[in-house]
Amino acid sequence: MSKSSPEKVDCAVAQSLGLVGDRWTLMILRDAFHGIRTFDGFRESLGISTSVLSERLKTLVDAGILRRRRSDTDGRSFQYRLTKCGMALYPVLVGLWQWGEQWAPSGKGRRLDLLEKATGRPIAGAAVLSHDGRVLQPWEVRSMAGPGAPRGTKDRLK
Amino acid sequence: MSKSSPEKVDCAVAQSLGLVGDRWTLMILRDAFHGIRTFDGFRESLGISTSVLSERLKTLVDAGILRRRRSDTDGRSFQYRLTKCGMALYPVLVGLWQWGEQWAPSGKGRRLDLLEKATGRPIAGAAVLSHDGRVLQPWEVRSMAGPGAPRGTKDRLK
Repeated sequence: MSKSSPEKVDCAVAQSLGLVGDRWTLMILRDAFHGIRTFDGFRESLGISTSVLSERLKTLVDAGILRRRRSDTDGRSFQYRLTKCGMALYPVLVGLWQWGEQWAPSGKGRRLDLLEKATGRPIAGAAVLSHDGRVLQPWEVRSMAGPGAPRGTKDRLK
Repeated sequence: MSKSSPEKVDCAVAQSLGLVGDRWTLMILRDAFHGIRTFDGFRESLGISTSVLSERLKTLVDAGILRRRRSDTDGRSFQYRLTKCGMALYPVLVGLWQWGEQWAPSGKGRRLDLLEKATGRPIAGAAVLSHDGRVLQPWEVRSMAGPGAPRGTKDRLK
């Protein structure tokens, strides 16, 4: 049995990647978390072509990750904002930032600092938490097939 | 100024995506976190072509994310294991899993359960933490250009 693309694998990670697993898409989301809201804002920040940006923004709006609406101040332009569904991707983006700063550093120090607004202190980063909020390492977690798992997963993860 | 690909953007997220921002690569990492270690194991799990799998595994080994060594039991075969650098991607993978289960569900229940080995209880998932371990929401965090930021970032994030 051959599957031609990762999104066809019946797994939550694959489904997520089918929606957001594109490098430009993740860069647009990074900018959205930084507060960029306009087409021109994304284009200037990323140096992305108009056609690619249009297509990716449409995909994100159709998937319910960004909401598109007319600007309050300029009725001819649109604003793109993260929905609740989009906001839920924050740990993924922070995880990618943290990993890149640690394992693919710039050589000139951190490119970006993420600070908690209330305290002004750098955040610790993204982590995996237990039911009662302890940080877990990968080797402390076991994967088990859930009720919605396809047969292959059930065979592999007992 | 036109940038032709996301990896050319000087940002930790972009650098991370340049190394792991490929859907098959992330699916291989998912399997590595599930304990799959052999070429045949990845191929059977993912239904990926031999040539694509070879190429992606080589990229991951060259980037220091997986380590390749001869199997202890069969000197002709190789095992691929996550390095410390690879393990550091765990919050990203758990974040993608969590988001997919919540926002792109299977309709038949969770496909995968992640349980803490020590307690047997489902994990809470991936989250962004403050310096003292509190869970932070995106709107509680401010992005600031760091010392290694390129000029464009410094202009945008003051």
